[in-house]
Amino acid sequence: MRKPCKLLFGFFFLGLTAVLAQESLQDQPLVSPEVREDGRVTFRLKAPEAASVRVIGNWMPREGFGRASEAMERGTDGLWTLTNPVLPSELYWYNLIIDGVTTTDPSNVHLIRDVASTFNIFIVPGGKGDRYSVQSVPHGTVSKRWYDSPGLGKARRVTIYTPPGYETSTEDYPVLYLLHGAGGDEEAWSDLGRATQILDNLIASGEAQPMIVVMPNGNAAQEAAPGKSSEGLKQPTFMMPRTMDGDYEASFRDVIDFVEANYRVKADKENRAIAGLSMGGFHSLHISRYYPDTFDYVGLFSPVIMPRGNPSAPVYEALDETLATQKNNGYKLYWIGIGKDDFLFDEVTAFRTRLDRLQMPYTYLETEGGHEWPLWRDYLTVFAPRLFK
Amino acid sequence: MRKPCKLLFGFFFLGLTAVLAQESLQDQPLVSPEVREDGRVTFRLKAPEAASVRVIGNWMPREGFGRASEAMERGTDGLWTLTNPVLPSELYWYNLIIDGVTTTDPSNVHLIRDVASTFNIFIVPGGKGDRYSVQSVPHGTVSKRWYDSPGLGKARRVTIYTPPGYETSTEDYPVLYLLHGAGGDEEAWSDLGRATQILDNLIASGEAQPMIVVMPNGNAAQEAAPGKSSEGLKQPTFMMPRTMDGDYEASFRDVIDFVEANYRVKADKENRAIAGLSMGGFHSLHISRYYPDTFDYVGLFSPVIMPRGNPSAPVYEALDETLATQKNNGYKLYWIGIGKDDFLFDEVTAFRTRLDRLQMPYTYLETEGGHEWPLWRDYLTVFAPRLFK
Repeated sequence: MRKPCKLLFGFFFLGLTAVLAQESLQDQPLVSPEVREDGRVTFRLKAPEAASVRVIGNWMPREGFGRASEAMERGTDGLWTLTNPVLPSELYWYNLIIDGVTTTDPSNVHLIRDVASTFNIFIVPGGKGDRYSVQSVPHGTVSKRWYDSPGLGKARRVTIYTPPGYETSTEDYPVLYLLHGAGGDEEAWSDLGRATQILDNLIASGEAQPMIVVMPNGNAAQEAAPGKSSEGLKQPTFMMPRTMDGDYEASFRDVIDFVEANYRVKADKENRAIAGLSMGGFHSLHISRYYPDTFDYVGLFSPVIMPRGNPSAPVYEALDETLATQKNNGYKLYWIGIGKDDFLFDEVTAFRTRLDRLQMPYTYLETEGGHEWPLWRDYLTVFAPRLFK
Repeated sequence: MRKPCKLLFGFFFLGLTAVLAQESLQDQPLVSPEVREDGRVTFRLKAPEAASVRVIGNWMPREGFGRASEAMERGTDGLWTLTNPVLPSELYWYNLIIDGVTTTDPSNVHLIRDVASTFNIFIVPGGKGDRYSVQSVPHGTVSKRWYDSPGLGKARRVTIYTPPGYETSTEDYPVLYLLHGAGGDEEAWSDLGRATQILDNLIASGEAQPMIVVMPNGNAAQEAAPGKSSEGLKQPTFMMPRTMDGDYEASFRDVIDFVEANYRVKADKENRAIAGLSMGGFHSLHISRYYPDTFDYVGLFSPVIMPRGNPSAPVYEALDETLATQKNNGYKLYWIGIGKDDFLFDEVTAFRTRLDRLQMPYTYLETEGGHEWPLWRDYLTVFAPRLFK
């Protein structure tokens, strides 16, 4: 005897799990968001029982520490819609607010996590958005791998991008160490930062040299991103212990040693770069002067400059002297980028004054915007082409 | 002048994006789900404006093609809660239904996608759940890599697990090719299937041999999972063209050739296994008899047996003759597993009758359950230890 759902599904068959959270099979699946050619975006939600549905996204006006939201309009049959004015080409994120609850759009499986929040994403193509999109170009390999850190006394997970052709060539490659901010982990740059797509595209266009990009976990207290370690499926926290106690910087040779022992790399100063955002910029600043003859390229994206509190870690001492040593040892690029609205703006300005006083050359980019990912993706796109040339 | 939010956040600093979708900073973050030691699980949602909040999860009773849901109870301050009775150790998924909209729990960042639906997950430890958890054991490497498939005329993305020690040893390894079902892709077995955790744990305990696990994309029409190819951030669809037209099976040597040219493998029949779930079981069945002297181990997990419709593909012809050839060539394990409630049960029973008639030996496991991931994770846990011994 044929079972009823076999008959029902005809040519194909459905895992029961696949239909559970979807509309009934008779309905056409909703398209949300629909990104139109002119840059307008339409959001849709079927919610006949809801009294209010709003969209909140990172293109909306700032409101306090967050963003304003915008009401969707209820149509017939409880279909709510909102069409946004034209947006410039970018990668955007948003949530839906359903009767006051901020959550994800069930019609959009493309999600990113930022610390403990999950957002839907979409890309408006035709400009910057194309940089962050998967294009028809050769693709590098992205690996999640574990290595031992004797300095931190634990195994740690790291994301490693090897450029297209790495596996089949016999060449050695330069390495960019790319560090995340507070609340991030070894998944931040590849997921939120679109580093894989950015590098694939810059290498394909000839703008950037083929390079290995190493994206370690910058939280000394953590083995791996939440859910990826034996701590289980915990919620991420922003305020982790040991992010700025100096141990991470002091043990950074562990990850360099691992990479240089396990990958075909050019293991010298002129083929090493280090860059990071926010806390990762802070780490890059201090690592590069603590190991003052190790990196020819340093990138500080919206960086924190000095630790909060007064940790008594050797790595944070003798700032001027170690910067002077780093300067005297020589480097090719010391790059700083920050948004005009960043709450770290004054701190970075004071650091630039310090560099000027030390006659330490640097390249400075001041952009619109605050302390947020659109800037950091953009900074990587500007920074990576300047490396290893 | 210190900017206000710098003062506010004190020791630490927050990216604006990180707080946008969260409760105000004064609130303690909600814990949801809270998995208690005794196996009870509590769900929580702050939703003062909602009229109804329900939990729907894969431990609840079946209802039609889906599951029943259960109402959460509204407490003071609009905090909704539900505590579930004790659940056996497993990996579970669920959604919240907020005023009729099925979506994700904003307090839980641990998500999986099954076709076009996104679910939250949690693990009840102490049994099977431990098999699917990251344990304090050596971890393999998981890579997302692209290879050329001349047979399909395109570059394709593949997930490859190499076991702990692969990179530093000089040994050659056996290979398991592990195939997903309809609506899945090269991310299904690693994400939904927990193949990485299962293999790490089985290898650490000595139950399974160290092996490479290759998880290709089984949809001939696709380069890569939705969002991972140049087609952009499209919604996944269940009914893809060219899943059962024979081209995938006929071109399967492409992925074997790629693996054997690029990894340190034992490239012979006794060190090759192929297994898959549902459509992937179908693929495994037909690939293993189409290349009848290639695999010593075959695993059919809740398999489809024959294509729907009547595709005129050579790969689906001469079933008895090619099975007889496969039998005569010899193999070590032909393994079939299916749940008693699977809508494919009768089809698999008929196939077993065919195998009996051909006097083709196989190992058969009949379990409780339907056509769903808990069985397939379990089957991998049973199947992998039988390989390469």
